[in-house]
Amino acid sequence: MERRIWKNGIFLPEEEAVQSIYDSASLYGDACFTMLRSFNKQPFRLEAHLDRLLENCKFTEMPIEYNFHQLKRAIWDTIFANRFEFADDDEYRIYINISRGPLPIYRDILEVKPWVMIAIYPLRWTLRGMSRLYGDGVPTIITSIRAIPSRFLESKSKNHCRLSSRLAELEAKRSDPDAWPLLTDDSGFITESTGANFFSVRGTRLFTPEPRNCLRGISRNFVLGLARKHEIEYRERNLEAYDAITAAEAFFTATPFCILPVTKINGQKIGDGKVGKVTMFLTEKWIEAVKCDFLEQARRWDEHQ
Amino acid sequence: MERRIWKNGIFLPEEEAVQSIYDSASLYGDACFTMLRSFNKQPFRLEAHLDRLLENCKFTEMPIEYNFHQLKRAIWDTIFANRFEFADDDEYRIYINISRGPLPIYRDILEVKPWVMIAIYPLRWTLRGMSRLYGDGVPTIITSIRAIPSRFLESKSKNHCRLSSRLAELEAKRSDPDAWPLLTDDSGFITESTGANFFSVRGTRLFTPEPRNCLRGISRNFVLGLARKHEIEYRERNLEAYDAITAAEAFFTATPFCILPVTKINGQKIGDGKVGKVTMFLTEKWIEAVKCDFLEQARRWDEHQ
Amino acid sequence: MERRIWKNGIFLPEEEAVQSIYDSASLYGDACFTMLRSFNKQPFRLEAHLDRLLENCKFTEMPIEYNFHQLKRAIWDTIFANRFEFADDDEYRIYINISRGPLPIYRDILEVKPWVMIAIYPLRWTLRGMSRLYGDGVPTIITSIRAIPSRFLESKSKNHCRLSSRLAELEAKRSDPDAWPLLTDDSGFITESTGANFFSVRGTRLFTPEPRNCLRGISRNFVLGLARKHEIEYRERNLEAYDAITAAEAFFTATPFCILPVTKINGQKIGDGKVGKVTMFLTEKWIEAVKCDFLEQARRWDEHQ
Amino acid sequence: MERRIWKNGIFLPEEEAVQSIYDSASLYGDACFTMLRSFNKQPFRLEAHLDRLLENCKFTEMPIEYNFHQLKRAIWDTIFANRFEFADDDEYRIYINISRGPLPIYRDILEVKPWVMIAIYPLRWTLRGMSRLYGDGVPTIITSIRAIPSRFLESKSKNHCRLSSRLAELEAKRSDPDAWPLLTDDSGFITESTGANFFSVRGTRLFTPEPRNCLRGISRNFVLGLARKHEIEYRERNLEAYDAITAAEAFFTATPFCILPVTKINGQKIGDGKVGKVTMFLTEKWIEAVKCDFLEQARRWDEHQ
Amino acid sequence: MERRIWKNGIFLPEEEAVQSIYDSASLYGDACFTMLRSFNKQPFRLEAHLDRLLENCKFTEMPIEYNFHQLKRAIWDTIFANRFEFADDDEYRIYINISRGPLPIYRDILEVKPWVMIAIYPLRWTLRGMSRLYGDGVPTIITSIRAIPSRFLESKSKNHCRLSSRLAELEAKRSDPDAWPLLTDDSGFITESTGANFFSVRGTRLFTPEPRNCLRGISRNFVLGLARKHEIEYRERNLEAYDAITAAEAFFTATPFCILPVTKINGQKIGDGKVGKVTMFLTEKWIEAVKCDFLEQARRWDEHQ
Amino acid sequence: MERRIWKNGIFLPEEEAVQSIYDSASLYGDACFTMLRSFNKQPFRLEAHLDRLLENCKFTEMPIEYNFHQLKRAIWDTIFANRFEFADDDEYRIYINISRGPLPIYRDILEVKPWVMIAIYPLRWTLRGMSRLYGDGVPTIITSIRAIPSRFLESKSKNHCRLSSRLAELEAKRSDPDAWPLLTDDSGFITESTGANFFSVRGTRLFTPEPRNCLRGISRNFVLGLARKHEIEYRERNLEAYDAITAAEAFFTATPFCILPVTKINGQKIGDGKVGKVTMFLTEKWIEAVKCDFLEQARRWDEHQ
Repeated sequence: MERRIWKNGIFLPEEEAVQSIYDSASLYGDACFTMLRSFNKQPFRLEAHLDRLLENCKFTEMPIEYNFHQLKRAIWDTIFANRFEFADDDEYRIYINISRGPLPIYRDILEVKPWVMIAIYPLRWTLRGMSRLYGDGVPTIITSIRAIPSRFLESKSKNHCRLSSRLAELEAKRSDPDAWPLLTDDSGFITESTGANFFSVRGTRLFTPEPRNCLRGISRNFVLGLARKHEIEYRERNLEAYDAITAAEAFFTATPFCILPVTKINGQKIGDGKVGKVTMFLTEKWIEAVKCDFLEQARRWDEHQ
Repeated sequence: MERRIWKNGIFLPEEEAVQSIYDSASLYGDACFTMLRSFNKQPFRLEAHLDRLLENCKFTEMPIEYNFHQLKRAIWDTIFANRFEFADDDEYRIYINISRGPLPIYRDILEVKPWVMIAIYPLRWTLRGMSRLYGDGVPTIITSIRAIPSRFLESKSKNHCRLSSRLAELEAKRSDPDAWPLLTDDSGFITESTGANFFSVRGTRLFTPEPRNCLRGISRNFVLGLARKHEIEYRERNLEAYDAITAAEAFFTATPFCILPVTKINGQKIGDGKVGKVTMFLTEKWIEAVKCDFLEQARRWDEHQ
Repeated sequence: MERRIWKNGIFLPEEEAVQSIYDSASLYGDACFTMLRSFNKQPFRLEAHLDRLLENCKFTEMPIEYNFHQLKRAIWDTIFANRFEFADDDEYRIYINISRGPLPIYRDILEVKPWVMIAIYPLRWTLRGMSRLYGDGVPTIITSIRAIPSRFLESKSKNHCRLSSRLAELEAKRSDPDAWPLLTDDSGFITESTGANFFSVRGTRLFTPEPRNCLRGISRNFVLGLARKHEIEYRERNLEAYDAITAAEAFFTATPFCILPVTKINGQKIGDGKVGKVTMFLTEKWIEAVKCDFLEQARRWDEHQ
Repeated sequence: MERRIWKNGIFLPEEEAVQSIYDSASLYGDACFTMLRSFNKQPFRLEAHLDRLLENCKFTEMPIEYNFHQLKRAIWDTIFANRFEFADDDEYRIYINISRGPLPIYRDILEVKPWVMIAIYPLRWTLRGMSRLYGDGVPTIITSIRAIPSRFLESKSKNHCRLSSRLAELEAKRSDPDAWPLLTDDSGFITESTGANFFSVRGTRLFTPEPRNCLRGISRNFVLGLARKHEIEYRERNLEAYDAITAAEAFFTATPFCILPVTKINGQKIGDGKVGKVTMFLTEKWIEAVKCDFLEQARRWDEHQ
Repeated sequence: MERRIWKNGIFLPEEEAVQSIYDSASLYGDACFTMLRSFNKQPFRLEAHLDRLLENCKFTEMPIEYNFHQLKRAIWDTIFANRFEFADDDEYRIYINISRGPLPIYRDILEVKPWVMIAIYPLRWTLRGMSRLYGDGVPTIITSIRAIPSRFLESKSKNHCRLSSRLAELEAKRSDPDAWPLLTDDSGFITESTGANFFSVRGTRLFTPEPRNCLRGISRNFVLGLARKHEIEYRERNLEAYDAITAAEAFFTATPFCILPVTKINGQKIGDGKVGKVTMFLTEKWIEAVKCDFLEQARRWDEHQ
Repeated sequence: MERRIWKNGIFLPEEEAVQSIYDSASLYGDACFTMLRSFNKQPFRLEAHLDRLLENCKFTEMPIEYNFHQLKRAIWDTIFANRFEFADDDEYRIYINISRGPLPIYRDILEVKPWVMIAIYPLRWTLRGMSRLYGDGVPTIITSIRAIPSRFLESKSKNHCRLSSRLAELEAKRSDPDAWPLLTDDSGFITESTGANFFSVRGTRLFTPEPRNCLRGISRNFVLGLARKHEIEYRERNLEAYDAITAAEAFFTATPFCILPVTKINGQKIGDGKVGKVTMFLTEKWIEAVKCDFLEQARRWDEHQ
């Protein structure tokens, strides 16, 4: 046996998780997607992910033959179909992709038909080598490459037009091979890293960019929920490099790693350069909430791969 | 037999012209490409296309194992390998795609390796139903969706992050099902249509946008060359909606169709709403230069498909 | 008898509600104005309208010989003078216009003198054919024409320089003859329609644009007051196309029609494409507050004209 | 007898040169216009003015029942009809105004019909008190009020939405009661004064702003024509405050006064603060070209009014 | 005896409070600084000033050999060392300056070494002639010179690159010799005056610009603290000229004068042109809080110099 | 003996080349300056430097008591006064600084008086360690710190508000300790490096940014003059990162080093990563024109310091 993907209602071997070079997804980055992770093999915030995905599809006028319930069902089916392909201590990484399909001009070779593809693979791949970052923190670089303002390309709609994020990664690594990029928009406001939302702490308050030129991350929302629950005051507001560099703490959130401290920006230590108290507190509360010690998991996986 | 594609030095059946959903090209639109056409089965401006493609790869720091000469050779090999798959009156459409390859995190399923893919298929597919436009002209709509300024995403570097162009097409078709979009940038300057450069004529002069937030099209350059040769004065300058709507003539250029009149913008006739003299003159000179009546070809193909 | 207008303290026949082509108002759009409606023949929010009008005059340095109380008195006088010209079931539409007067260079033909003009006519004219929109909702189009940022021309100061709104209307009607335009500003933030403020609903919250590049509508404020009174949480914030299109409900507010559901944006249904609950609730509360069923009025008028 | 205006083919007394407050022109500044002057009672550049006016109407989608030739005829008719109303040494000021007409909602009081109005009056009114400026020059102030970029409101399309120009005039006069405003756009590039184009001289070259966020003045074009004829090199380019303030000479052009030196900007002398050589040369050449000493006229008129 | 300054741990005569023309501070404005005042000879908000200064140094990567406590100590030492140089009724003005030192290329003449300089002098100098402004208010002019957005030059980091503020002062004084400039940023949002934060009052609410393109003034924060304490509602938000001109009250805050009413903007009275109630209330509360009647002090000093 | 500076007509020892921390120059970066070099001990383009300096002073409204001829004389006097302080093979570096003087509030300690200071020192200091760059080229980094647009702070007016350039240098050195920054403006257009203009070569053409958001360098103009003389076609135009990175050659020009090849941008080789032909040609022609082999000088100086 081996992992199988779900495509338009049919299970196919994982190696068929491909898209034609004539697909609009390949030619135009014209597909919406989202990626989940599980905690204790339960997909995290599945409904929130699907809601956003369908919102994204609506915004991009993506034709789609499956509704919320059918997609949810398909995800569970995919998990079920692949359940024996994962080690006991694995978690799932689930990737749902929705495309408009091949362009009509290629109808002589390909069926011009939208598709939904759901793939699943071990989360440990995504987290490879990252466990040390929970303790050391991520160094970041504010890049000269700026986030595309959402009036040009909607960052709130997760799609495959992300070359500039990719180039920002390369730029960050030119000054520090471990660094992640921290993008700003045209106004100099911090947006996000590649696939990770940014938070800073100042005094007893949590700050995160207004959710405008960045993805409205599910993990971001989860942290805001934790803050509300545990009465940490927070503000969504325009943050600038100055605010980030002079903050007491900073961290990233994203689906695969949940929360990662940012300990350096442009070579300058954030606070005392250690993982901050609020960051640690939120990490603990997250672990409690999902009943899964994702730090420990990450460490274990790093030891065994 | 059937058409075959060239991939990293090997010929594969056309149905293998696919990319993994784990490829950086799929995930980030992270690939450079170009598309050529032939006249009388000779690829047009092959060297100019390759020069630009390699420039694009340099700018996007795309690793690539083949140099100019190897790529040129590969294209000719692909043509040769597929020569019997085309009707006598066909022309070639050649599509070269260069990717960074699958992301390292997926190395357990896929070889993490850049690839070059060269595909070839009948040009008539691309031109289906377009022959009447040489006479009627293309209606265009200035869309609310704007071109992404090249400081955010380099439009001069032909890549697959083109969702906003796609959405602009959908927008244009909302007011007129035949309409093509005409994009403007943040300053209100005309850039291009989806994959086509824009020209206008005023008095005896030809105008085209400064080559900044648009592709520096090979056909665009060819038209400028024809203008120089035939002593038509031209200017590359910032053009606004006002300039376009009040022009005497307008046309698009692009590789597959060469040159197409624009006869309407936002429902307003350009000039008298007919194909203009300068447009016709340049079309004729182009046909003479390539010794191939592409209008006649397009008409013939439309009759037989 | 017939309707009469008030001009600088004198009543004149309605056909003299004109301005010279040499008036600064005609040449420069250089006049401030506001328009009211009545409920049960009582002018609605008369004082708020006058306050804003005088604020507008101050900002545009408009010379004006009448103070708040004199203007208020003049409006009541105008109503009184015309009271027999309206049917029993009519409501008043009142239009106050304040101009700098003819330019000095034309002093040989015209007295160079600021003027205030107050006109009154049946509100049913303005609402002609609109009654069905309360049930069907208004389709809207995000236009390529953008709102003029207030740093160039103060949208908070109601004046007659509104050609771009007019052109936006024409643009919207090109894709749908029933559509109203929805303007965005240079940052892609939603501003308003022509003379109507925009609201959206998401979860249990009401959203409306920060009152910056739009008119600070009296009806807008009234709705915010209703929200406060009935404990509907609301936010004034930067809203983008994405927020609007993926909202659960949306509506417009403006003086003549009070509140109108927006059921489509760019051809996409808002929520389920029906009038939303919050919209309905606010409409009812408005009707209660003014003790006048403006929906029923609009329907009745449409049947009789 | 008295002056008469031409309105939709009919002559009316001058006092009927009015527009309803319900006219789209009054409500939205929704009308196109142009103004000419005569030299020796011959309208100057009549055809160029009409061409631009019709281009403006096209851009603003203004319905208009008269073509170029009919409008030209109507202007000559208006001159003829009023010929005895002008003194021998007068020149004509001709004002053509084209409107979409009253809004449909006011159809119960007004005929909803576009109109063209042509008025004529003595040019000396416009030039009152200006003769001394030919010798002293105009002091100018770069205002905090900026020109509306043409992507928001097309400055190349002469219409009545000019309140911000009016406010810029008031601003300029706050620092110097004689000063005219010099507007810059959002990029800090000089555009124009209220109804006048700007030129500067540096070395032996003439400079004027790229014709983008300003009117493409007929007088501006005439000066460029004079420059070509007399081999003065010129450039249309982005000019900034720095360029203007450090220029050797500067001047304005506009239809009524033709050419006026700018001798001060922001209180700083331009060059030596006197009328420059190139300005004088162009003035002389203009006088020669039109065989009419407009300086002398202006002086004479100022003595007699 | 005479006043002495503290420089890198050593006391020097005041006339040695100089910097080489080869110092980076002179060549690049490359130094951070802050200025304090005392109330009753106690430095006001010393710790807040030092915190911000060190934050500024961090942001500008200024090398600095002294930590918070050492700097605090040095300031107190400077006060102590100069205590007999001040009249009994004087207050201190303390100026701390931190520089990167001379450029390495000048190492043959100067020691390439960062320096900290602390100078102290009578506050009355700074306030000379200002006492009448507490009663009359400051007239302000919105200048054409705009605040440099912090993405280009961080206004939150107090440094010596302030030429444009200086030029804005000159501009303001061109329309009114008593006027102070009121700067706006590129979006037309009010930022600050030269070294003073702006507040306005509307209804019962206090407004001040979002602390983005202006200094985050210590006095500004103190006023916000007073507002919190005395339950005056306040908002930090984007304020435009319209908001300022139509406000009921306005005032400036800054270290030397604490709080000064703004009674005119662009020649228009703010409210009734008198010092407003909220302004007065906050002034009183400030005086109470610091137990020092700074108004009275200013008046007394003006009488004796 | 030792070097002496000229200050307001008086010679002072070099250690008095200082400015008070109360000088407007120190507090606001409020001074204009220029720096020259000599070839064979003759100051290069002295008149062009003075012209620009005086233009800068005019723009910044700098009061100045010396005219062109007096300043020129003072420079020659300074050279003469210091002639025995330079080695035979030295060249002069001359630095002229013009300030508004101490602020009036400090009049109790300092004379409030503008000043002009002229200093002179060996050029070899400035060029220390740079000789190898003529052969190796300069690696450059496009920084996230952007050039301040001249509408905020006039880059054409050489003044001391250059902190952001300084920070850009630090940023560039984070990715490569040898790298110089290459700044872009808000539109992504290349401006300059810290004190050096940028050129690129493409085909046979020379390109350099439109002289808008950069200094209009004297060396830049000299290179354009050489190009004209030797019939190398050139264009001043908007250049973007794409243009620079894909150019065949690139170089910097500035007064002290004249011309330096740029061989890398963002880690990518420019052309083949060697000094280009056009760069070499222009260097040779420059050497011929000034009859001074500045390369050889730089090498010699590097060997002896």
